[in-house]
Amino acid sequence: MSFRPFDTKALSRHLPILGWARVYTPDTLTSDLVAALIVTIMLIPQSLAYALLAGLPPEMGLYASILPLIAYAIFGTSRALAVGPVAVVSLMTAAAAGNIAAQGSMGYIAAAIALAFISGLILLAMGVFRLGFLANFLSHPVIAGFITASGILIAASQLKHVLGIPGGGHTLPELLDSLARGIGQTNPITLVIGVTAIGFLFWVRKGLKPLLLARGMRPRLADILAKAGPVAAVAVSTFSVWALGLHDRGVAIVGEVPQGLPPFALPAFDPGLWGQLFVPALLISIIGFVESVSVAQTLAAKRRQRITPDQELVGLGASNIVAGLSGGYPVTGGFARSVVNFDAGAETPAAGAFTALGILLAALLLTPLLHFLPKAVLAATIIVAVLSLVDLTILKRSWTYSRIDFAAVAATIALTLLAGVEIGVSAGVGLSILMHLYTTSRPHVAEVGLVPGTQHFRNILRHRVETHPTLLTIRIDESLYFANAAFLQDKIYDRVVCDQPISDVVLMCSAVNEIDMSALESLEAVNTRLHEMEIRLHLSEVKGPVMDRLKRSHFLDELTGEVFLSQYDAFRALTKPRAVA
Amino acid sequence: MSFRPFDTKALSRHLPILGWARVYTPDTLTSDLVAALIVTIMLIPQSLAYALLAGLPPEMGLYASILPLIAYAIFGTSRALAVGPVAVVSLMTAAAAGNIAAQGSMGYIAAAIALAFISGLILLAMGVFRLGFLANFLSHPVIAGFITASGILIAASQLKHVLGIPGGGHTLPELLDSLARGIGQTNPITLVIGVTAIGFLFWVRKGLKPLLLARGMRPRLADILAKAGPVAAVAVSTFSVWALGLHDRGVAIVGEVPQGLPPFALPAFDPGLWGQLFVPALLISIIGFVESVSVAQTLAAKRRQRITPDQELVGLGASNIVAGLSGGYPVTGGFARSVVNFDAGAETPAAGAFTALGILLAALLLTPLLHFLPKAVLAATIIVAVLSLVDLTILKRSWTYSRIDFAAVAATIALTLLAGVEIGVSAGVGLSILMHLYTTSRPHVAEVGLVPGTQHFRNILRHRVETHPTLLTIRIDESLYFANAAFLQDKIYDRVVCDQPISDVVLMCSAVNEIDMSALESLEAVNTRLHEMEIRLHLSEVKGPVMDRLKRSHFLDELTGEVFLSQYDAFRALTKPRAVA
Repeated sequence: MSFRPFDTKALSRHLPILGWARVYTPDTLTSDLVAALIVTIMLIPQSLAYALLAGLPPEMGLYASILPLIAYAIFGTSRALAVGPVAVVSLMTAAAAGNIAAQGSMGYIAAAIALAFISGLILLAMGVFRLGFLANFLSHPVIAGFITASGILIAASQLKHVLGIPGGGHTLPELLDSLARGIGQTNPITLVIGVTAIGFLFWVRKGLKPLLLARGMRPRLADILAKAGPVAAVAVSTFSVWALGLHDRGVAIVGEVPQGLPPFALPAFDPGLWGQLFVPALLISIIGFVESVSVAQTLAAKRRQRITPDQELVGLGASNIVAGLSGGYPVTGGFARSVVNFDAGAETPAAGAFTALGILLAALLLTPLLHFLPKAVLAATIIVAVLSLVDLTILKRSWTYSRIDFAAVAATIALTLLAGVEIGVSAGVGLSILMHLYTTSRPHVAEVGLVPGTQHFRNILRHRVETHPTLLTIRIDESLYFANAAFLQDKIYDRVVCDQPISDVVLMCSAVNEIDMSALESLEAVNTRLHEMEIRLHLSEVKGPVMDRLKRSHFLDELTGEVFLSQYDAFRALTKPRAVA
Repeated sequence: MSFRPFDTKALSRHLPILGWARVYTPDTLTSDLVAALIVTIMLIPQSLAYALLAGLPPEMGLYASILPLIAYAIFGTSRALAVGPVAVVSLMTAAAAGNIAAQGSMGYIAAAIALAFISGLILLAMGVFRLGFLANFLSHPVIAGFITASGILIAASQLKHVLGIPGGGHTLPELLDSLARGIGQTNPITLVIGVTAIGFLFWVRKGLKPLLLARGMRPRLADILAKAGPVAAVAVSTFSVWALGLHDRGVAIVGEVPQGLPPFALPAFDPGLWGQLFVPALLISIIGFVESVSVAQTLAAKRRQRITPDQELVGLGASNIVAGLSGGYPVTGGFARSVVNFDAGAETPAAGAFTALGILLAALLLTPLLHFLPKAVLAATIIVAVLSLVDLTILKRSWTYSRIDFAAVAATIALTLLAGVEIGVSAGVGLSILMHLYTTSRPHVAEVGLVPGTQHFRNILRHRVETHPTLLTIRIDESLYFANAAFLQDKIYDRVVCDQPISDVVLMCSAVNEIDMSALESLEAVNTRLHEMEIRLHLSEVKGPVMDRLKRSHFLDELTGEVFLSQYDAFRALTKPRAVA
């Protein structure tokens, strides 16, 4: 057929499904189905648990694991990423919705749903306008510090379920205070269930796989069995509560979980509410994107595949929009489940769509079985999962490597614990940027001279070089922009004021990739003031694009000296005896 | 005397007065006295007018021009800077105090005084901790845009006095709206006085000096006479109002101005108030410092003198602290008056102290004469003074030079006019920083090859160079830090995925001045992923300080390849046939 209304290549860039669906084979289908089954088993308890962490009804965790996965399968570029509720984003959702309404209220649920929708719109807009680079402003030390502190906060927030006491709070002091006040009301049966579950899950994580391997099981199967630990804990504990009637003895259970399809509704547009949720939604979007994209990149590289960060934004945006439309809450790509998906052999995003079908079946059929599931077991799965996020060695590693990075980590951890997730991550970003600006605001600047017998110029402090009393040459080792413009000016004035015979100053611009308007105005000021002191200003080795830009200003007309192609030309021209004084 | 308890050199660095007072001569005294007389005459109407602009009683303008000048004479480093109330800072004071209490109330006055004191403490702390570099975050285009927009706002805010109507507002739409609603109540006599004063002052500024010069007057004297225009306008209009009884016909006058010394009081410490005033005080401090230091540097360079920015912070901090202790409001070094001081021959900061005595005499003796001074004339002096600040050509200049700088200017102007001074200047700073991070987050990266017959490596796209199919060499033209760490990773993956025979990647680090921890972790990830693809990663031409830092991490142990001293060594080692595959 010669009729071809669309550019199919561009279309498949924006709809990656068109790329892989065309070459889908029965073999791929088998691989994807196996992976989907395993991820479904893992995702059911996780979805319920993270909904509990977010302070939401358990079915919202399931809803957030159905349509968002299908949307990602259509728009996402990673072959193995598994999308759904994750720990850190659930914590951030609880913090944001808790600012709007009391946990458990309709307003709280509506805020969580709106948060998913707004966050989806933000991610989609970032993808369309190619703003993925914004995520780069989160430096690695800030992310590491934030994830560690969030893990501590999450674990602390779940202790109340293990003890069977009421409580709440969004910062470590609040959480500890609420635990201290409630600890007298601890329910001993709940405590036994919770502690047993924690012990069992830790053993599954650390001890089961080596045991199975020692018994001769194939490593992949052993690995998958070990991941099914939480499902076993859920099944056994639910059965025990029901059989022993423990819910009548004060063990908190999940209770009624509505059976059926996710509800569809457009989130109500309330400008006041959306305004309050915008900043939290932005932080959730960026944190979720950073977490998801780093998982996706790691897995893609293992098979020499590529992901497209800007298209990933579109995929995650679509996922969150449908999460908001189908009674879910903010989702992103999770580390543990994506690795399981990858290890279980998922070859295309279709595995995600099959997982969604699995969760949908669970929502339709299994929810009555979850009635007697004790909350303490869900809390135990959360605690065991998040403690692996806590990595305080980042403090030591960053201290050894650089004090500036250490300060960013320490501030992020301290503020996240003491003032909450939103302030913690914002302060970390702000501090990283400030400290970067501080270091580049004092660029390396060297006075240079000619290495005898060559045409090379080197730092006069490090090399034996030729200089000339009336000529000062300064090499600048950084682009010139507003933060360092004043510094250069000071350097030059300091140098010429204390050395009277100087008649010519040359700025060697071999390492200057950019001169912004602030720096241009500083150079103009330097030129004017040196002129008042009867000193000429010259430039040498200016790069092409910088020169093009300078030509668009009046600077070159006003420059008292010349622009030399090479520093050696400048040296020869300015040190030979002049015909006219 | 051999007893010498202090290091007098260090002491005179912190108390610059000890430096110049020791070499003070009768000649210097004469020069300083003449300059002080001229500046005093100029400063009296200015002080009254800027107090009106700040919404404060006129005597506060005088108080702000007495002790702050003496404090600067002791602690400041500029020989010619004249400190006192200035237009932009007065506008910012009005905006900040207006958020606390209604103009004219005791709370408003207390807020303005506290603002001076807090701003003084901030400036002093910045000086002591050497944080002067923070001012560099204000890029020149942002400052230019902010000053222009402030000039427009100030002129608009004074039109009500020229029309003799009530009104107010902190943004252009508010001001225009209040003018539109009040214009029906215009007082015709006030309007005549105001318009005449504006016309006269413009003529004095533009037409008087050429006229005097044409009549053969010496240029310096002509210049000084032209600066005395406002004093003439004040004297003539005050006399006219008194003689014709115009105040009984609705012409607003200054009224009772208390006669006497400035009141001394420690500003009340109210944590709530101080908390609210902190951010405005910080913005006032930084804007005031930037304005002052650029004037001081310009004047110092003309006489080959130097100022010390960190000591300038101490000087301005002391000035503002005493302003807060003596019933004044925030002050800084003013452009026009400093130039007059300089041109009139001021040789040391003592000229400032003599000016302070002049203003003190005025406060003691002249205030009864100011009773009938019409506010419209003060407004006229403000309008004529600030219109010289308005420079819309910055929009065109920045557009020609760089779209990024243009966006910063345009956003600063628009937001200052539409949302007020605080939001305007904050947004300008934020935008400058974001756009700088954006440009450095995509650094120049080139694939390089060997220039035949040399040891030089150049961009393969621009030069005819030798390459080798299994070797990829990438030169990075920027320091590696969090904002560009991900970009480099993407570049490398994109390149190796599409070119299968590559077995070795070399990163040429000749232009890398720094590798922060985020970039280190990116390099570790690159190393690991390339290893999974059976590609080795090497570095070449790593600078000494960067190498020292890398040695403190585990990166060099994990690196699959080598660190070569020169790129040529790397090329020779990696392209010769290997003994073992």
